[in-house]
Amino acid sequence: MHSLNELQVMLERYARQHPFPKEPLRLYEPCTYMLSLGGKRLRPLLTLMACELFIDEVEEALPAAWAVELFHNFTLIHDDIMDAAPLRRGKPTVHMRWNTNTGILSGDVMLIFAYQHLLKACNNQTAVELVGIFNRVAVEVCEGQQRDVDFEQRDEVCLSEYLRMIEQKTAVLLGGALEMGACCAGASPTDRMHLYHFGRIVGTAFQIQDDWLDTYGDPARVGKQVGGDILQNKKTFLVLRALELANETDRTALCQWLRTPADTPGKVEAVRATFDRYEISAHATAAKAQLQQEAFKHLDAIKVPLDRQALLRQTVEQLLERDS
Amino acid sequence: MHSLNELQVMLERYARQHPFPKEPLRLYEPCTYMLSLGGKRLRPLLTLMACELFIDEVEEALPAAWAVELFHNFTLIHDDIMDAAPLRRGKPTVHMRWNTNTGILSGDVMLIFAYQHLLKACNNQTAVELVGIFNRVAVEVCEGQQRDVDFEQRDEVCLSEYLRMIEQKTAVLLGGALEMGACCAGASPTDRMHLYHFGRIVGTAFQIQDDWLDTYGDPARVGKQVGGDILQNKKTFLVLRALELANETDRTALCQWLRTPADTPGKVEAVRATFDRYEISAHATAAKAQLQQEAFKHLDAIKVPLDRQALLRQTVEQLLERDS
Repeated sequence: MHSLNELQVMLERYARQHPFPKEPLRLYEPCTYMLSLGGKRLRPLLTLMACELFIDEVEEALPAAWAVELFHNFTLIHDDIMDAAPLRRGKPTVHMRWNTNTGILSGDVMLIFAYQHLLKACNNQTAVELVGIFNRVAVEVCEGQQRDVDFEQRDEVCLSEYLRMIEQKTAVLLGGALEMGACCAGASPTDRMHLYHFGRIVGTAFQIQDDWLDTYGDPARVGKQVGGDILQNKKTFLVLRALELANETDRTALCQWLRTPADTPGKVEAVRATFDRYEISAHATAAKAQLQQEAFKHLDAIKVPLDRQALLRQTVEQLLERDS
Repeated sequence: MHSLNELQVMLERYARQHPFPKEPLRLYEPCTYMLSLGGKRLRPLLTLMACELFIDEVEEALPAAWAVELFHNFTLIHDDIMDAAPLRRGKPTVHMRWNTNTGILSGDVMLIFAYQHLLKACNNQTAVELVGIFNRVAVEVCEGQQRDVDFEQRDEVCLSEYLRMIEQKTAVLLGGALEMGACCAGASPTDRMHLYHFGRIVGTAFQIQDDWLDTYGDPARVGKQVGGDILQNKKTFLVLRALELANETDRTALCQWLRTPADTPGKVEAVRATFDRYEISAHATAAKAQLQQEAFKHLDAIKVPLDRQALLRQTVEQLLERDS
């Protein structure tokens, strides 16, 4: 069994051993740049941890893990273009540092390289299964991104639609990362399925936590401006739950706030006051806790010794404990 | 053996049987739209013809053929954004009819669907081989597109660099389409290799022909404004060959013309006069003929009965006979 740090070291070594080609510079330099911005590498680590639930040879899952990380970074490059985001982890986004065309093409080639790594699986059957899981998840991520774009232009979005959107856009990739790790280990279809759902449900809980942190988190620990979602009129779990619970007067007022510009004075305070009136913070925490419970039932259903599960269990639990 | 028309019918039937999902509409409608703009479906037909060189069951190659067509259309959607092209086959491009973000995301999902079709191959080994060929070619297409973008910003590009760029950007996909058809038929590595090179070299000949047609073609038959490449200062085979052959005075004058705006009076006539002085039309025709000869040596090297080769041979010969 490896520690989290050991898995991180293995992953970075694999990445160093498989750099992008040097030429054409303008195609591959942005790929290398994007990957150098860091991040927790959560998704590929999930792939490795899932593999190690079943077998000792965690190296088997390194190519699939790296494919997941490349896919994630491909989506970040293209999403940053679509969101016109200037910064990513405090550094200029690819389309800002270069331009939109470079962002499009470098993202494209990064996605293709992800498939190249999938083919490095130990045998043909595993490779085909990996590409199948990857495809299924990748399509869902695109659909989720499209729904996110659609929701921005719609007046009315209900909470269940939102939950389904974040499930597709961000949560299924965590599920797929775990499922692919199990696939590399030759785990049974039932165990793979449980791991997929564990990741998918945990991923949804993460998003609700992110929404909560944006409004209720400790600014020093969250590392960004508190209330940013409110200022930008984002349709978050908090807003959509408040719209469900509020009376006619409060709902109308909240809808009006959601149409005001980011610099409207008193906006964050007014929206938070409505949230507080309906105990939205507690509702979010409860929804997260319920998902967490549901998710871990899937992990409990996998019949592997507890010591093999310890790292995955701890890692996910710690991530779910951030403040709320 | 099937006729070209029968293969076209089979391909369109396969496409109808595998439509994109209905929802989210804004993600998939642009994909369906792009594919409905028509085109010759040359690449997937090459896949089917290559398969039928070796086996009667050409249906085996339908998923791979359609994957090639989806890949081609994905590149068209993204290239049209990068080129800011308003029209494709006389209709608005995806990013013009919708917007750039829609073009990016619909292109992405179309690429992922291409991989889904590759997995429909008859067995795991074939599927893995197909994804491998597809990846190799797809990376080259991205590299070629990047070099094309780079060349536009460079003052000096030599002819050999240009030929390598068009080989990557457009020709290797024809080679890959044929190689994938041979792969579906279980052809030998040697035969696959010959088909790849046949397509790759023929593809380069097509591009030289396209460059020639843009300046010397019959406007009524070419279906577009003659001299468009000259007006837009494109670095074509004709220009780059002229720059190689011209004396100092003519080269300087040509370089000056290449920096003038499209509406400069007398531009097409002046550039054509330089071309004529160095017999660039004949040089292009000779280069094309030489490539054609080289390409067909690869087809000749494949040991299959002549009647099985007839359709592929005729189709490519006819395409190479357009005017020049």
